[in-house]
Amino acid sequence: MKEKITSSQNKRVKQWRALTSKKGRKQTQSYLLEGWHLVQEALKADQPITAILGTADQLAAHAAVLPSDVDCFELTDSIAKTIGDANTPQGIFATMPLPHAAPVDPQTAQGGWLFLDQVQDPGNIGTMVRTADAAGLTGVVFGRGSASRYLPKVLRSMQGSQFHVQLVEADLHDWIQAFTARHLPVYGTNLDPQAQDYRNVDPVPLAAGAVVMGNEGNGMAPDLQRLTTRNLYIPIKGQAESLNVAVAAGIVMFRLFG
Amino acid sequence: MKEKITSSQNKRVKQWRALTSKKGRKQTQSYLLEGWHLVQEALKADQPITAILGTADQLAAHAAVLPSDVDCFELTDSIAKTIGDANTPQGIFATMPLPHAAPVDPQTAQGGWLFLDQVQDPGNIGTMVRTADAAGLTGVVFGRGSASRYLPKVLRSMQGSQFHVQLVEADLHDWIQAFTARHLPVYGTNLDPQAQDYRNVDPVPLAAGAVVMGNEGNGMAPDLQRLTTRNLYIPIKGQAESLNVAVAAGIVMFRLFG
Repeated sequence: MKEKITSSQNKRVKQWRALTSKKGRKQTQSYLLEGWHLVQEALKADQPITAILGTADQLAAHAAVLPSDVDCFELTDSIAKTIGDANTPQGIFATMPLPHAAPVDPQTAQGGWLFLDQVQDPGNIGTMVRTADAAGLTGVVFGRGSASRYLPKVLRSMQGSQFHVQLVEADLHDWIQAFTARHLPVYGTNLDPQAQDYRNVDPVPLAAGAVVMGNEGNGMAPDLQRLTTRNLYIPIKGQAESLNVAVAAGIVMFRLFG
Repeated sequence: MKEKITSSQNKRVKQWRALTSKKGRKQTQSYLLEGWHLVQEALKADQPITAILGTADQLAAHAAVLPSDVDCFELTDSIAKTIGDANTPQGIFATMPLPHAAPVDPQTAQGGWLFLDQVQDPGNIGTMVRTADAAGLTGVVFGRGSASRYLPKVLRSMQGSQFHVQLVEADLHDWIQAFTARHLPVYGTNLDPQAQDYRNVDPVPLAAGAVVMGNEGNGMAPDLQRLTTRNLYIPIKGQAESLNVAVAAGIVMFRLFG
């Protein structure tokens, strides 16, 4: 099942390269995992990998654990360097179909959730998904205006947590309103010291509820803040203007759910 | 005091470009601040800026607040793009002397401290300095093997917190032993669930003590762990293998000092 690819003009190589763009992902309905850590996480989580691509060295190094029933392509070192976007490419990749899971219904969603309102930085987004996983949350909702979860840097920062928690793209108005109607607490976050000090809020009962994190520069949208159960503030003691959004998310999630 | 520079072969331009390397910083005993946010933070903190460099547009935009007693260089757009290392350069920079502060003595250091043991990722380091500032800590000690605090990405992630907290390069053995000898608590961090659950530790009395964060892949060095008052663990509830080191640092610092 292993095919050697030596021409950088090969049609498949062009398709793989295109997976760093939204257009390329849409055309082939697939996305790219870069580096052994992510490929291994996908294998462990029994994900529907469609192909494994790697240099001769990488494929040999991992031969014992690569599945025999998945198409495998051996790339020259120079072709491998043109795929993906890591600064220090590891020479091994996998392709995965874009998921077509049934949309999650906020009327019935269980457990803890992180809602992302227009978060922009791919590293921050990936780190928050990883942290949500570590804090035992069920899933993450990407509201309008948040960066795509298939960006290579988001995928790298998630470190495989996309296989452990549910990722949903949806309107946060709908999700916040559905949760509060179900009497599940939804905590917004706010840079305003007038908001509630997060240290004075108890852990979420039965770990069922949500935390909303906002845009790096502007915070959470005011119309969403008006829909939450309460908006929380992390007191800043020093002279820093603010916390990094992923650090703030970690502090609040581990306080409420950890 | 404003000089226009139009040749990319200008000697000063070459020196500024070299400030992204350790060698260049050493030769001129100075380092570079990139982007208006950092330049503004340095001005606010009354730092000894030696020169301001910017495109005509950027210098005009900030003319009202630029100091008149500092050398100012107007760069062409194309030259400005070759200085610094931001993906999206903002066209404004300042140069600063490398600090020659008297070394801080661990026998007399006051307040809360973050100790970094071989932390590698510049974004993580910068974010931890910013978080230490927000949590009201006095300073950060860069132990052997941690990345330089003058890397452009470290400087960007610190967001000016380097002007608010003390940054020290030193041997962590010395600092940990000095603190514990003074009966100041030093909390190591550990991925081992046998370590102490961080939630069962009270905030540090009088906010005087230290937290140690270790290398991204290997954690804190075992010989340092043996010197601490106690080593803390953040329980992972989901399937993530670990937390990002900057997120973990935020959770522990805000628990102990926040």
